[in-house]
Amino acid sequence: MDLKKEALKLHRENKGKIEVVSKVPVKNEEDLSLAYTPYVAEPCKEIEKDKDLVYEYTVKGHMVAVVTDGSAVLGLGNIGPYAALPVMEGKAVLFKEFGGIDAIPICLATQDVDEIIRTVLNIAPTFGGINLEDISAPRCFEIEKRLDEMLDIPVFHDDQHGTAIVTFAALVNALKIVKKSLYEIVAVVNGAGAAGVAISKFLVNAGVKDVIVCDRSGIIYEGRKDLDSSKQKIAKITNKKKIKGTLKEALEGADVFIGVSGPNLLTKEMVKKMAKKPIVFALANPVPEIHPEEAKEAGAYVVGTGRSDFPNQVNNVLAFPGVFKGALRVRATTINERMKLAAAYAIANTISEEELSSEYILPKPFDKRVAENVAYAVAKEAINTGVSRITKFD
Amino acid sequence: MDLKKEALKLHRENKGKIEVVSKVPVKNEEDLSLAYTPYVAEPCKEIEKDKDLVYEYTVKGHMVAVVTDGSAVLGLGNIGPYAALPVMEGKAVLFKEFGGIDAIPICLATQDVDEIIRTVLNIAPTFGGINLEDISAPRCFEIEKRLDEMLDIPVFHDDQHGTAIVTFAALVNALKIVKKSLYEIVAVVNGAGAAGVAISKFLVNAGVKDVIVCDRSGIIYEGRKDLDSSKQKIAKITNKKKIKGTLKEALEGADVFIGVSGPNLLTKEMVKKMAKKPIVFALANPVPEIHPEEAKEAGAYVVGTGRSDFPNQVNNVLAFPGVFKGALRVRATTINERMKLAAAYAIANTISEEELSSEYILPKPFDKRVAENVAYAVAKEAINTGVSRITKFD
Repeated sequence: MDLKKEALKLHRENKGKIEVVSKVPVKNEEDLSLAYTPYVAEPCKEIEKDKDLVYEYTVKGHMVAVVTDGSAVLGLGNIGPYAALPVMEGKAVLFKEFGGIDAIPICLATQDVDEIIRTVLNIAPTFGGINLEDISAPRCFEIEKRLDEMLDIPVFHDDQHGTAIVTFAALVNALKIVKKSLYEIVAVVNGAGAAGVAISKFLVNAGVKDVIVCDRSGIIYEGRKDLDSSKQKIAKITNKKKIKGTLKEALEGADVFIGVSGPNLLTKEMVKKMAKKPIVFALANPVPEIHPEEAKEAGAYVVGTGRSDFPNQVNNVLAFPGVFKGALRVRATTINERMKLAAAYAIANTISEEELSSEYILPKPFDKRVAENVAYAVAKEAINTGVSRITKFD
Repeated sequence: MDLKKEALKLHRENKGKIEVVSKVPVKNEEDLSLAYTPYVAEPCKEIEKDKDLVYEYTVKGHMVAVVTDGSAVLGLGNIGPYAALPVMEGKAVLFKEFGGIDAIPICLATQDVDEIIRTVLNIAPTFGGINLEDISAPRCFEIEKRLDEMLDIPVFHDDQHGTAIVTFAALVNALKIVKKSLYEIVAVVNGAGAAGVAISKFLVNAGVKDVIVCDRSGIIYEGRKDLDSSKQKIAKITNKKKIKGTLKEALEGADVFIGVSGPNLLTKEMVKKMAKKPIVFALANPVPEIHPEEAKEAGAYVVGTGRSDFPNQVNNVLAFPGVFKGALRVRATTINERMKLAAAYAIANTISEEELSSEYILPKPFDKRVAENVAYAVAKEAINTGVSRITKFD
């Protein structure tokens, strides 16, 4: 079967993938009078008196806007808001199927940072959370930061944090296998776009001894002339020994390689120069930085990719449905670093010590335990860190 | 049963009234690969090549944004975007149930005209049409006009045009009963907000001999000092004899009263001074301008209200689902006057000559024939007037 053709057929025959349906009966005049005029005025009046009741009487508390400007869609690049819509609908499908969350694609006709921020602020009242999606770096950093500061609902750029959470979950379990501690390893991140920056920050926050980030020009170090503001920030918190050079040099003696870059950028020779029992996450899609078989031949002890046809797929669907589910459950005002860390450990710990193996460090996307484990951990940590508006939940 | 309490319970137990569900299966990895990565890239690439294919591969062609700023919600006034959300969800429910259209509430955190316009322009790519809702006059006129000019999808302020279409449909059938011609009647419209202005324009466009509009200060005439720009425009096309005075004076000898104003503003004495066989549409909600029984006692021949517990309910649900269904079916770029007129006649003609009576001039809200009749008429007229992007439809 030609899956490309199947995908076109699926989208064409259904005219998209999502629909908006009623949860209440509309079979007679009385139904109509309760769901609409005149008696819909009752919840309206209650909310007017107490704004927080919007969470009790409306969809807000379980509805997320999936917002994109179409500037960095999958591996396709800047294809614009119309061509991005199938991806955003797909995301809405996953939100519902895995997290029980109602999500709506919002594809923006602008790629201007201020304009995007203003638009999202204006449409926010309907939503319990904002999932930013496929917005190019470095614009995505400013957009997320400013929106998160200004809004009283969580803002989460999945390409950054979803990827970082799942990658870190994979690392936690991989380290159990190679019997190394987080606090003594050096990790090299290749790629300094949205995902690379977020992963690097995550590893530093989590306590990794040192992280070295490389972009197309090689190792990022403080003072390198060509760094944009997001890379300057990364330079400050990584590469403690301030080494310079290429990816090859960065990898000498490193414990972990994490690629969010491009096809075939990691060679067997480079892997051979890494520390004992190296961990290799080659996440470029569809062609990874190194083929898993080659990585293993070169000595990699645990290997992960972004693909479903190899073991250990680093797939964002393990994170974002549960993260939002947890944040919405306690009406969190933000998704902070500790909530993200809790999400990652919840994913990692879904696999028991007995189940764990070098071919099975991450749950499968359809593992129904994951979203609920993540949601519980995130909700609890939101309460612990004081960013929840509800302090009890079921 | 206390329906007010029932309404609160319904909203609270369901946490709102709508949900977003998948139309495609997501049961295994292959399903996931078709609906999301990697194969969702196929429809994306097709749309990137030809933007119009967004109508084939996505929800756009059957998805409507229900946009409000919460400034004029039901009879509740300026209750803001949060308190407005239950109404917008209700509207989304009706869109689906009556028109098969997927609608999303967008409640805006701004009441600034330019900001509203900018926001709607920015979120438009996802949607096939924009339904403006409960935005106060005169701001609503400018917002609709400018959006309709700038967008290539229909923009329709339901409080104006939905009400005008259904009121005119009621008038068409009422005139059959009193055996008068549109071209020889004088109609008095009491109320010059969004609905009053739209009804007045509609009647003039449809060929009514003369329309006299009254606001709180009495009859609107050209040159009256206190008129805002929308009322100045209305003054130019109505009140041909340039009469001045109160509602009472306007009604002397008039054939039709249409109230979109407030409770008990029409007296039996005023009705008695109207022409023979007067038609009275007292649409204020929940308390009409005159109780239907009193209107009848004073000689009204046909009486309609906005309420479901009296005969002849003027209910927007007869119009907007079919109007959007028809416009979307042929990918209309706008909803023009002729399409609205076609919608009104389609509603009126849904009732056969045999069925027609002074107690039954409008179909019931649950008459399943209506939306399809309206959709067909609107689609056809979109093609006739050259505003459709498809010239054939099923």
